[in-house]
Amino acid sequence: MPNPTAAMLVIGDEILSGRTRDANMHHLAGRLTEHGIDLKEVRVVADDPRAIQEAVKALAGAYDHLFTSGGIGPTHDDITAENVAAAFGLPIGVRDDARAILEAHYEKQGLEINEARLRMARVPEGATLIDNPVSGAPGFTLENVHVMAGVPKIFEAMVEGLLPTLTGGQPVVSQTLRVERGEGDIAGPLGALAERYDALSFGSYPFIVNGRFGVNVVIRGQDEAEVTRAMQDLEKAFPA
Amino acid sequence: MPNPTAAMLVIGDEILSGRTRDANMHHLAGRLTEHGIDLKEVRVVADDPRAIQEAVKALAGAYDHLFTSGGIGPTHDDITAENVAAAFGLPIGVRDDARAILEAHYEKQGLEINEARLRMARVPEGATLIDNPVSGAPGFTLENVHVMAGVPKIFEAMVEGLLPTLTGGQPVVSQTLRVERGEGDIAGPLGALAERYDALSFGSYPFIVNGRFGVNVVIRGQDEAEVTRAMQDLEKAFPA
Repeated sequence: MPNPTAAMLVIGDEILSGRTRDANMHHLAGRLTEHGIDLKEVRVVADDPRAIQEAVKALAGAYDHLFTSGGIGPTHDDITAENVAAAFGLPIGVRDDARAILEAHYEKQGLEINEARLRMARVPEGATLIDNPVSGAPGFTLENVHVMAGVPKIFEAMVEGLLPTLTGGQPVVSQTLRVERGEGDIAGPLGALAERYDALSFGSYPFIVNGRFGVNVVIRGQDEAEVTRAMQDLEKAFPA
Repeated sequence: MPNPTAAMLVIGDEILSGRTRDANMHHLAGRLTEHGIDLKEVRVVADDPRAIQEAVKALAGAYDHLFTSGGIGPTHDDITAENVAAAFGLPIGVRDDARAILEAHYEKQGLEINEARLRMARVPEGATLIDNPVSGAPGFTLENVHVMAGVPKIFEAMVEGLLPTLTGGQPVVSQTLRVERGEGDIAGPLGALAERYDALSFGSYPFIVNGRFGVNVVIRGQDEAEVTRAMQDLEKAFPA
């Protein structure tokens, strides 16, 4: 059976302006691979209602899961929750359970829950909450869309809470061979090998270190024994 | 006049599997902002013909420029060039000028241009070449799509060659204030300020350092004097 598929939507002007380097995509990609969910596409859009709604509709419709990152804080530029709700045509409002979580969190710190913080208790109708052990304010899952925070520590904590609740497939295993030759030198034999093992995927990732070219060849597949056989053939073709 | 708009398309299984952390998006975002081109959307797709063609059609149609990264090397998994051509319904083949560049590059290193390397001289009909001072093999511009390499050093060199040929708008200037308070504390007054300066954009980027919450507030706009005025008001609202 093929693995479940997923997309990710990163929401935030700060990524597109170059101010902030996104870290959540790389983190989620690795954790999904380990869990046996195939990440097929990522989009990054601005803090813009239409852009968010269109991306949510397209990606939630095309894949088994959509994971979002960013835009669920208390400030005026945090507009993810209401636009995910709008993408499904559902109302959103402050919910008692989310409000209770926030009140308990701020009480511990001697802080009051003001109007801005209360924004973070708004949950679309029918959603379930995603736990936030770092800063209280929960994420949520609406249909197949998992809405999480943009701050990496909070995003990562939410992913750890969420993943065990999602059915994974067969994790993809990979093995890598570092070849100290130019990509153009190895392309012919590598292509032939990739054709022979058509259930596996062969990736060729060139690098430059100290002005010298090399390639990391990565073989990926769900059958570990077959990946190992292909790697042995690869090593024979390109001895160190 | 509004700035030209742009999208980016990152092509590569290795990003989606979590093996490689993309660096080109952050680099391009910063350079475009400096050049006065507004990056509006980024997509990451796999080495898959249909995914590449659909993304190229959607993004080249929606924005003034599309910049792509990855998949133009000599190996079997490098399929960007032919799929960009296919997205425009144009033929692709080895072109003499691109071939001459490659031959000169490999001759200097005492290497032969084999069949695999010749793949990198394939250029869609009507494209212009983008110079690659690092490893010879050129990128190309087809209509409003700029096709560049995935290896960061090569990507960055191609961007530096390409940008001066593109008309930029007014660069966006930004100023940042670091506030050592929780986002929920500042959200109310910040939102009011953002409403008052409606030609500027106010971003609120929370962080956690040593278990303490703080916020970087970023004010962006094309009119530097107005950004400075807004920043002075912000500093009054949140004194250090």
